[in-house]
Amino acid sequence: MSWSRRHVLATDDWSRDEIELVLQQGEAMLEVLGRPIRRAPALRGRTVVLFFAEASTRTRVSFELAAKSLSADVVNVSVSGSSVEKGESLFDTVRTLQALGGDILVMRHPASGAPYFVAERIGGAVINAGDGWHAHPTQGLLDALTLRGALGDLGGKRVVIVGDVLHSRVARSDIHTLVPLGATVTLSGPPTLMPVAWRCGAAPRGVAYEQDVDRALAEADAVIALRLQRERQEAGLLPSLREYSRVWGLTEDRVARMRPDAPVLHPGPMNEGIEIDAAVAHGPRSLIERQVTNGVAVRMALLYLLAPEGAA
Amino acid sequence: MSWSRRHVLATDDWSRDEIELVLQQGEAMLEVLGRPIRRAPALRGRTVVLFFAEASTRTRVSFELAAKSLSADVVNVSVSGSSVEKGESLFDTVRTLQALGGDILVMRHPASGAPYFVAERIGGAVINAGDGWHAHPTQGLLDALTLRGALGDLGGKRVVIVGDVLHSRVARSDIHTLVPLGATVTLSGPPTLMPVAWRCGAAPRGVAYEQDVDRALAEADAVIALRLQRERQEAGLLPSLREYSRVWGLTEDRVARMRPDAPVLHPGPMNEGIEIDAAVAHGPRSLIERQVTNGVAVRMALLYLLAPEGAA
Amino acid sequence: MSWSRRHVLATDDWSRDEIELVLQQGEAMLEVLGRPIRRAPALRGRTVVLFFAEASTRTRVSFELAAKSLSADVVNVSVSGSSVEKGESLFDTVRTLQALGGDILVMRHPASGAPYFVAERIGGAVINAGDGWHAHPTQGLLDALTLRGALGDLGGKRVVIVGDVLHSRVARSDIHTLVPLGATVTLSGPPTLMPVAWRCGAAPRGVAYEQDVDRALAEADAVIALRLQRERQEAGLLPSLREYSRVWGLTEDRVARMRPDAPVLHPGPMNEGIEIDAAVAHGPRSLIERQVTNGVAVRMALLYLLAPEGAA
Repeated sequence: MSWSRRHVLATDDWSRDEIELVLQQGEAMLEVLGRPIRRAPALRGRTVVLFFAEASTRTRVSFELAAKSLSADVVNVSVSGSSVEKGESLFDTVRTLQALGGDILVMRHPASGAPYFVAERIGGAVINAGDGWHAHPTQGLLDALTLRGALGDLGGKRVVIVGDVLHSRVARSDIHTLVPLGATVTLSGPPTLMPVAWRCGAAPRGVAYEQDVDRALAEADAVIALRLQRERQEAGLLPSLREYSRVWGLTEDRVARMRPDAPVLHPGPMNEGIEIDAAVAHGPRSLIERQVTNGVAVRMALLYLLAPEGAA
Repeated sequence: MSWSRRHVLATDDWSRDEIELVLQQGEAMLEVLGRPIRRAPALRGRTVVLFFAEASTRTRVSFELAAKSLSADVVNVSVSGSSVEKGESLFDTVRTLQALGGDILVMRHPASGAPYFVAERIGGAVINAGDGWHAHPTQGLLDALTLRGALGDLGGKRVVIVGDVLHSRVARSDIHTLVPLGATVTLSGPPTLMPVAWRCGAAPRGVAYEQDVDRALAEADAVIALRLQRERQEAGLLPSLREYSRVWGLTEDRVARMRPDAPVLHPGPMNEGIEIDAAVAHGPRSLIERQVTNGVAVRMALLYLLAPEGAA
Repeated sequence: MSWSRRHVLATDDWSRDEIELVLQQGEAMLEVLGRPIRRAPALRGRTVVLFFAEASTRTRVSFELAAKSLSADVVNVSVSGSSVEKGESLFDTVRTLQALGGDILVMRHPASGAPYFVAERIGGAVINAGDGWHAHPTQGLLDALTLRGALGDLGGKRVVIVGDVLHSRVARSDIHTLVPLGATVTLSGPPTLMPVAWRCGAAPRGVAYEQDVDRALAEADAVIALRLQRERQEAGLLPSLREYSRVWGLTEDRVARMRPDAPVLHPGPMNEGIEIDAAVAHGPRSLIERQVTNGVAVRMALLYLLAPEGAA
């Protein structure tokens, strides 16, 4: 299996082999991260531009450390303080960033599809670090790496995703990574926060909806809690945060009824006490910090594969 | 010709030889930028402080990449989040930045003359990255490098600058770079946006005003469109943006009547549809991305020349 | 004397030997900073995270340059633009930063004690870069390094600290560093801006209060002026800034009556004309720029001592 993609925009059209290749590369990068001096020379003299049109410390720092661990130069461009405020078009901004010498453009943008628009128009590589409700492919890959580390081969494994699937690029990217690896995904959460077709029997292959979260968790090999945006309540999609927590939250009681070794994941940042209790988030089942570390490894893997000379 | 300047504040008192030296050095830096690993060791262990008291992604990132390509350490200081908000004087801020170990201070400031004030009072080198309406010397130099790349020797060449010359440090710095190289500059734009003396027959040597942009463009070897600040209309200096675009904008029709090989430049960020049409900005005459790349090269040249050990 | 601390949270429980060790290491780092190429390889492949939940250009840039001078990778995380705004807990934020691979976390936080909370819960090293009114240990150490450079051994030396001691983490950290080195500290300033116990005879060992600043300065070997926060006046703790300046400010006249060689320090940023006159701040007694340079050296010393392999 050799790598031939120029960009990482979403994983919805990736083959199982491509996903496997990135996960294997990610495992090799974990080994680099475990060394006393966490640094490989692969991207020396290369420039990675982090263009974040939406705030995200976690993902931005993860890409920054991934790039620096590969000896790349990193330039941060955030919307606040950038020329984007002067009314320049997204197209001109990224063309400029590329003409400045950026080899790989990592971009987060509130508009779904923005990275596709950019990737079609510039010469360098583009990595989508989250676009609107659409996709967050590196999150899907790091969740797969984390689950595989805990559960081994994902074939036949049952992963439950709980929460606001409707607005979640994380849920979409998890599905597009886990299902090709052989897992099934059960979605649970308020019907108002599910895509209508999915909860009405027309979910994608490998995906099912189960409104009763306890029933979904009973047979689960792992559970991923999604962040609940507080504005969903203001929009009338939820009765109250307290009600959400009672019915859908990963409380200690609820998680205690899962299989003894079933792990708990969360993409962060967490609303503790709402979608997940602090005792669960920091308890023995939690892989949440492992996800953070694996995120750096997966991003190193992708930067390495996309770099001008990089080859698997 | 050897280099003896300690600062780059404006090019209004530069000799032709000094400008030539920087352009030649810039051409050498373009060669470095064309290598697979864009990195030279010239500024290793040196610190370049980017002090931006006015937002500008384009110029800030250009200097940052220029400094990193020469292996310098770069520290970003922007006004938002800086102690400047605590009421500290500009003088104390830059003295502190220097005492911290900055070798070269790149500064953008809304007050015309601020870099002069600073350069007189600190020991290290200062590069003006734009001060109020006064000067933007690296823009003038990169425009000269770009025009020379397209037109060859600039002796006798006719360059038209269209737009709000009155408030434009770009226009001033272009004039101060292009005229010593032998070019003539014709300014065109609304009389309300021209320095009164210049449009009344007292323009500097090598500079003329022609209100009719089509007449100006008829004989032009190249045209530079200036960014139109939308607040000029609110200030009553323009009838409307639509009117501006119709009378002064670089539309496809207007540019088509220029000489076939006459290039179009713009310092960015562009207001497409106002001072320049998208089809022109991204068309075959456009050197706008080339300007961006050349900007990195010119800034590398200046950082190299100003560095403590740097010598031409 | 060998170094055994994992964190630098405050110096209130440090031994004289520990303080001496850091100052000696700081002097060695000054030597590195004096080289043409200011760079040592000690922290190559290590990551220093600068987590600033309160703006401070001076301290942030000082740590950034200190870390880069030791070849560390540096990641900046400031509250504006960080996930902290999304309501994530401080604990989760720092756990994430550590899971991302940060070896040393430098943190500034408006809540007194925040670095203790963090240090108890994460594996890596924590340096307090200022927490509320509590402590600013690197400021105390750099002031000691600066005073020792000017006065030699501090045993028996009399240092006066003038200003708003009540709200000053700088004053507290200066006391905790200077007194163990044998100096006595006299505090002067408005009674409303002094801890009640301290001005009523229950000051810590080596510390006294003298309301009359001229009497305090008469016998002083050195004086440190504190920054006056303008909001103290609004809170009714001061009659007026002008009155403050007249009674407590380091004016030229007042300083002229000190011993001829007694130096003047200020932690910056200064309110010139309020707690210190410009002529004093930039006059021959001023060590204020020296403090800035020494700050980089002291922070290099601490980063070196705390680094995973670092050993004195």
